[in-house]
Amino acid sequence: MKPLAVLNKSINQQVIVELKGRRGYRGILDGYDPHMNLVLRNAEEILDNDVRRKLDSIIVRGDNVIYISP
Amino acid sequence: MKPLAVLNKSINQQVIVELKGRRGYRGILDGYDPHMNLVLRNAEEILDNDVRRKLDSIIVRGDNVIYISP
Amino acid sequence: MKPLAVLNKSINQQVIVELKGRRGYRGILDGYDPHMNLVLRNAEEILDNDVRRKLDSIIVRGDNVIYISP
Amino acid sequence: MKPLAVLNKSINQQVIVELKGRRGYRGILDGYDPHMNLVLRNAEEILDNDVRRKLDSIIVRGDNVIYISP
Amino acid sequence: MKPLAVLNKSINQQVIVELKGRRGYRGILDGYDPHMNLVLRNAEEILDNDVRRKLDSIIVRGDNVIYISP
Amino acid sequence: MKPLAVLNKSINQQVIVELKGRRGYRGILDGYDPHMNLVLRNAEEILDNDVRRKLDSIIVRGDNVIYISP
Amino acid sequence: MKPLAVLNKSINQQVIVELKGRRGYRGILDGYDPHMNLVLRNAEEILDNDVRRKLDSIIVRGDNVIYISP
Repeated sequence: MKPLAVLNKSINQQVIVELKGRRGYRGILDGYDPHMNLVLRNAEEILDNDVRRKLDSIIVRGDNVIYISP
Repeated sequence: MKPLAVLNKSINQQVIVELKGRRGYRGILDGYDPHMNLVLRNAEEILDNDVRRKLDSIIVRGDNVIYISP
Repeated sequence: MKPLAVLNKSINQQVIVELKGRRGYRGILDGYDPHMNLVLRNAEEILDNDVRRKLDSIIVRGDNVIYISP
Repeated sequence: MKPLAVLNKSINQQVIVELKGRRGYRGILDGYDPHMNLVLRNAEEILDNDVRRKLDSIIVRGDNVIYISP
Repeated sequence: MKPLAVLNKSINQQVIVELKGRRGYRGILDGYDPHMNLVLRNAEEILDNDVRRKLDSIIVRGDNVIYISP
Repeated sequence: MKPLAVLNKSINQQVIVELKGRRGYRGILDGYDPHMNLVLRNAEEILDNDVRRKLDSIIVRGDNVIYISP
Repeated sequence: MKPLAVLNKSINQQVIVELKGRRGYRGILDGYDPHMNLVLRNAEEILDNDVRRKLDSIIVRGDNVIYISP
């Protein structure tokens, strides 16, 4: 199953997104594009395992992504 | 909803833009392009949670963006 | 044998993926694309030789990859 | 208003250009291209808020730009 | 002789691959593509001149390569 | 005036080229291409304001350039 | 004279190649491609002005290059 197909199947489900620089986000996947730019809603920013911020909706730029876990 | 569609819906609304290097901007989204280059008006530069500078209008280069929160 | 052909032959087999920043993943290769974005299932995150996290499924972004060992 | 349209409107006007690495330039925008490469005339280089150098004309490479403020 | 032609001539021969971050690999070149992604078999990972790991087969991502020596 | 047009007008004239990593070059611009790769002749390498090396001719790769001053 | 034309004229002549990370190579230019990937023969690796290694032939990846001096 190709990476974008897995993203597609994860729409409306919770995902964990790990970024470069010890940053992570947890939220409901609302959208994506082929660059792996992501839209998350009900998102929490996690820095070193602590929830640092809550965000109704964020667009995460794909080139910061290390992995996405559906 | 795709990332650029979310940006499009956010035109004329306040957004928070988090960049690499602990820098952030808050302002009204005035425009964008497919590289996520952004135009903000009435912008505030935020460095480590402090407002450091006010700028009538700025063009932020997309490749510095970590996330945009509408 | 070209790099993507080796990936193709490794589908449904265990692979080790070494990323920039001392991070590694071990899991069953479920998919890939030409950018070397990878889908792993039953994945383990390895940081400095310790298993740090178990993940049912992850999409690893190709531009972090140093090597993949089938 | 799209980012390049804002640049276009700023031709012959003073702009501030903030680059990666704590460097900035102030000058009259003389030209640009779609990569955000810029031509400034009567430019001042600013490092940590001090004017460090004056330059009749410079071409700034776009991939160093964080923001441009018209 | 162009770089990819040299790689082509080195198929089935031992090569040394030096990567960013003080890492190197020695192994038999099994394949490559135009991005300089490489397939090595009977590979040894070398870190600061010590063999650190032996790997039957690896795919090395081209954008980490500093040089390849046939 | 577009960035490449300024470069074109600077052929056979002295330019200063500032690169990432505190390095600079001063020399006669002999050629360029759209990536801002440059050919300089009678070049001097400048590191922290000292002339460190003289070079009859160099090709500078464009992606290291911060600015070029004609 | 354009950068690639200068490279072309340097085939079979000695060149100095300076890379990111204080590394350099001296050798006979045997080939190149438009990405400035280079083939050198009778190459010497130079680290902080000392010859550290001799290599019959190497392919240097272009994106590490700072400058090439024919």
